[in-house]
Amino acid sequence: MTDNLFNDPQKLAAACAEAMYANDAATRGLGMEIVAVAPGEATLRMRVRKDMLNGHQTCHGGFLFALADSAFAFACNSRNHATVAAGCSIEYLAPGREGDLITAIAREQVLSGRTGIYDVELRNQDGHQIAMFRGKSHKIKGEIIPAPEASAHAE
Amino acid sequence: MTDNLFNDPQKLAAACAEAMYANDAATRGLGMEIVAVAPGEATLRMRVRKDMLNGHQTCHGGFLFALADSAFAFACNSRNHATVAAGCSIEYLAPGREGDLITAIAREQVLSGRTGIYDVELRNQDGHQIAMFRGKSHKIKGEIIPAPEASAHAE
Amino acid sequence: MTDNLFNDPQKLAAACAEAMYANDAATRGLGMEIVAVAPGEATLRMRVRKDMLNGHQTCHGGFLFALADSAFAFACNSRNHATVAAGCSIEYLAPGREGDLITAIAREQVLSGRTGIYDVELRNQDGHQIAMFRGKSHKIKGEIIPAPEASAHAE
Amino acid sequence: MTDNLFNDPQKLAAACAEAMYANDAATRGLGMEIVAVAPGEATLRMRVRKDMLNGHQTCHGGFLFALADSAFAFACNSRNHATVAAGCSIEYLAPGREGDLITAIAREQVLSGRTGIYDVELRNQDGHQIAMFRGKSHKIKGEIIPAPEASAHAE
Repeated sequence: MTDNLFNDPQKLAAACAEAMYANDAATRGLGMEIVAVAPGEATLRMRVRKDMLNGHQTCHGGFLFALADSAFAFACNSRNHATVAAGCSIEYLAPGREGDLITAIAREQVLSGRTGIYDVELRNQDGHQIAMFRGKSHKIKGEIIPAPEASAHAE
Repeated sequence: MTDNLFNDPQKLAAACAEAMYANDAATRGLGMEIVAVAPGEATLRMRVRKDMLNGHQTCHGGFLFALADSAFAFACNSRNHATVAAGCSIEYLAPGREGDLITAIAREQVLSGRTGIYDVELRNQDGHQIAMFRGKSHKIKGEIIPAPEASAHAE
Repeated sequence: MTDNLFNDPQKLAAACAEAMYANDAATRGLGMEIVAVAPGEATLRMRVRKDMLNGHQTCHGGFLFALADSAFAFACNSRNHATVAAGCSIEYLAPGREGDLITAIAREQVLSGRTGIYDVELRNQDGHQIAMFRGKSHKIKGEIIPAPEASAHAE
Repeated sequence: MTDNLFNDPQKLAAACAEAMYANDAATRGLGMEIVAVAPGEATLRMRVRKDMLNGHQTCHGGFLFALADSAFAFACNSRNHATVAAGCSIEYLAPGREGDLITAIAREQVLSGRTGIYDVELRNQDGHQIAMFRGKSHKIKGEIIPAPEASAHAE
């Protein structure tokens, strides 16, 4: 049954996202939703809440970063290899306002050995660019979804 | 009275921090406290809560970033010139765990025209380095605390 | 005659590149060639010389960076607005070797007010990724090619 | 004799720098000099030559980067563990001019497992800040100076 899963990169990406989301209190607590996942890609969405505003009454950079970081995490773990962030950078282009629905699209740029580079674009509901994020990932040991026993004898 | 304030960089930094903190729902909502401020510097502290944990049961990078970003904001606004973040980068060194008390120390490295560079170091309660953050700031128009009328004539 | 130029973004990009290249001793001295330019884009090429090798006998990061930085410069000046680099980052993926022909492709990701973000990909002659570069640009006053007098036909 | 070397971090740093410099055609070819080294630190100096100028007649960013990158390399290899750059960022603060003597001071900020973070400050002969650089290093196998045989007969 799970054979399908491990032979189908798209199904595997979806299953990884579901498993990660269920365990990730931070991503859920910030009201993020998964819009789409694919191998090496993830799109997440978050609405800017009143408690996310800084003293300029715009979205605190930490929450924009958190949205990008989660999209990055779902993208870089989508191939079922446990992967963590090594470092990230963000460039702010326009402020997020209360009530804005921000979409983060993460796309794999490079996957080379244990290192990956992912770019994440943040746009608001009008399509305006809010921020650009780049994350560098590092593959560690382990899987998101345990693979079936290799020796699962062949009938 | 406020004369003192505008002639004393340390008092001005403290007053800016107080005014910013009062208006910053995000920083307060994440449980951050201001430990110290000085011209070009700020130290903030945050305890890692259960709702800040990701699927690895470690502090989601977005919350570490948010703490660093707030320390950066308090440091770069400490001279009473309204200043915003242009871009930031973070390198993760060790995970934050539930209950950890993370301290962020932000220090001005460069202030040149309208551009500043600030480094923020994150350490846990045992002094272990958790992350290094670098923020680039951009001075805009405005002040944190309105200066007294220039024409206050000297009676 | 130059009317054509200022009405045709592709011709203008080519003319800007030609003018910049003629004045840029560094880019020429490193043996870089312009392969292609377009509005917001530039492709440059450089062969790794013996005098570019570091102690590991691989291309010194400074020369890979220089190639990416030049491609970035030609891309961000391709619309005939004088533009300078504010900051850049590079991630190294694989070493360059003596004799390698490295191609840098720079593409505009964002152009918003006076700020732009450009990504540059470096590949060797076998198509292997050597490095990823991101540059942030800042528009200043001036033009690469002086526009014809607004009051053109005075005669 | 070499015993002294391997027991004295300062002597070891000096010996590593000397060995690296001798093999590094790029650093020598750009006219860089080593001013000082210490464990985790290196100061290098370079004069801006005519062939380093870009179309603005200021030092091409690639050469400023190369100077910072070499200082970073000497600093992160100063403990005799072969170490390479994983990624770097640079923020430009002021232009370098022909004839300027630029000094780069690299200092270790973090050394944690195989990962290090080094900051490099570039100043001209008047002490003005020219650029800020941050490099992330990765320790690989090998040494700069081969250690004496461990089994060098035991008396």
